[in-house]
Amino acid sequence: MLNNKRRFSLMTTNSHSSSQKVGTINGTKVNEMHAVEAPLSGAADEAFVTSLRGRFVEGRFVYRQIFAIRSYEIGPDKTATMETLMNFLQETALNHVTSSGIGGDGFGATREMSLRKLIWVVTRIQVQVQRYSRWGDEIEIDTWVDAAGKNGMRRDWIIRDHYTKEIITRATSTWVIMNRETRRLSKIPGEVKKELVPFYLNRIAVASEEKDCEKLDKLTDDETSERIRSGLAPRWNDMDANQHVNNVKYIGWILETVPIEVLEDFNMTSMTLEFRRECRQSNLLESITIPTTRVIGESNNSINRKPHLQYTHMLRLQDDRIDVVRARTEWHFKQKLQ
Amino acid sequence: MLNNKRRFSLMTTNSHSSSQKVGTINGTKVNEMHAVEAPLSGAADEAFVTSLRGRFVEGRFVYRQIFAIRSYEIGPDKTATMETLMNFLQETALNHVTSSGIGGDGFGATREMSLRKLIWVVTRIQVQVQRYSRWGDEIEIDTWVDAAGKNGMRRDWIIRDHYTKEIITRATSTWVIMNRETRRLSKIPGEVKKELVPFYLNRIAVASEEKDCEKLDKLTDDETSERIRSGLAPRWNDMDANQHVNNVKYIGWILETVPIEVLEDFNMTSMTLEFRRECRQSNLLESITIPTTRVIGESNNSINRKPHLQYTHMLRLQDDRIDVVRARTEWHFKQKLQ
Repeated sequence: MLNNKRRFSLMTTNSHSSSQKVGTINGTKVNEMHAVEAPLSGAADEAFVTSLRGRFVEGRFVYRQIFAIRSYEIGPDKTATMETLMNFLQETALNHVTSSGIGGDGFGATREMSLRKLIWVVTRIQVQVQRYSRWGDEIEIDTWVDAAGKNGMRRDWIIRDHYTKEIITRATSTWVIMNRETRRLSKIPGEVKKELVPFYLNRIAVASEEKDCEKLDKLTDDETSERIRSGLAPRWNDMDANQHVNNVKYIGWILETVPIEVLEDFNMTSMTLEFRRECRQSNLLESITIPTTRVIGESNNSINRKPHLQYTHMLRLQDDRIDVVRARTEWHFKQKLQ
Repeated sequence: MLNNKRRFSLMTTNSHSSSQKVGTINGTKVNEMHAVEAPLSGAADEAFVTSLRGRFVEGRFVYRQIFAIRSYEIGPDKTATMETLMNFLQETALNHVTSSGIGGDGFGATREMSLRKLIWVVTRIQVQVQRYSRWGDEIEIDTWVDAAGKNGMRRDWIIRDHYTKEIITRATSTWVIMNRETRRLSKIPGEVKKELVPFYLNRIAVASEEKDCEKLDKLTDDETSERIRSGLAPRWNDMDANQHVNNVKYIGWILETVPIEVLEDFNMTSMTLEFRRECRQSNLLESITIPTTRVIGESNNSINRKPHLQYTHMLRLQDDRIDVVRARTEWHFKQKLQ
């Protein structure tokens, strides 16, 4: 064991710049002379770090970020979870804004929005998963924005396998602007529109006929008896930097009322979330799931890849039964590898 | 809006290789000629992807991985959470094994271990946080292993600010080997030792006098009245690839019985976890926290940076009160920025 003095000097040593590194390896003193480091120069190192957050492609209209699926981003079946995908989508969206040069001081807000105390609020998001990535897989996510009606913005994403370029996930979302103090929705001010328009790209990730535009109905009490879980309490760490429940956390609560056999034997191939109300730390939630279609067996001959199972979900405040999130999910039976 | 045919060809286009990319941007047709892409060549791209998982430094005795703190890895105070740090530590450890060439088919097991159906089990981990990183910060994590007694392995980590090289976190852990079928502890077979020894590095991340070797006492029923939460149920997504509760999930349950004011106003500066029993999906847990020291005000003049608060924690099976995890945490009052 090294003596204290030497150990401390070792621990604070920067292995890139130190010229006096000495350590004990398997009982034998060694120094830098014996070391063969991976050839990664300082400049390459900095380029790598810059690339970690992604970069613009296609003339700054598309923002692309590469991810390697990490060990803790997979579920029990060793593939990336829907939560992981949603986290990745959020990350690329925020890095897109930051890298665009129009970013303000908030979570994805532009400078002109920040000046007016305006924030983005997502009202709906739809994710279609063709294939879930496995631990160690590399994926690349493209994201871009476009106008959505007069006072909204659409943000789309395409996830590809980094090597084969196979499209493995498509997603689309709608955003509106809210005043962070009054919590009322706002029109997009002209100055904000001026910031956004140069980035607008008229391209869609989810084909019109695949887009889930159907109204998500409120579940009535009669229907809600089937699968319900009450007393879901947001934890301190479930809050985001705006002191609201992080959107991704809702997925976990929704999945709490999906039968365990479905989680084990089916892949969630589609999820549509409609955000209807903000949720704060003090709120207690109730999660409800009801099956809406069951067409097992029909899908093998179907071109449209009809789901084997479909569910409607609701997260509502336990006290006054006001709904916070409505959702629809589709599931396909897992192809088991022999 | 593009017609269907063109839209589909766009969506399946690989922007790296396509020579015929045409899109509509703000109503005007554009093609690749107008695009100015960030200068990242195919070769640089591959080097980047390889680097995502980290690399060996210091003559293959130390493994280093760089992380940029992502938007969803921070808590309400906009700094990385303890869960995030623990995830990063796990990730570097697994990538270390995979990159070493001795990896088997399991979660960090070596080839000779896999042949014998042996898996690693962590028995204790201690993390000392000097400073929590913020969203966007870049950190680098060094990890290495050494022998721990006759039948254990020690794994240490140092987290540095990537730019200043300031040490911001130190961690140490103890691992033993278990038969994955009998679930009994095993000696380290000679063949496994032969795989490991070439990587052993006699260097410690946590100084002996800082190491928390104190026994973590079982909390008695008298003590446990203060803060207790029952009915904690592991969710399907809390399971790891071995069908056990992921170690990191325990942190969330432990924090559920820490007062919210502490979570808000204090930083957790140290955490020691002792893993005593496996936990499966069907188990219901109980989380208990009791304060063990309270020395607010003394710390300003203290060289040893004594904690302002200290807690002892226990997670136990609700049915038979057998403890699964014992823990100790230390907390310092947050320095509020003016």
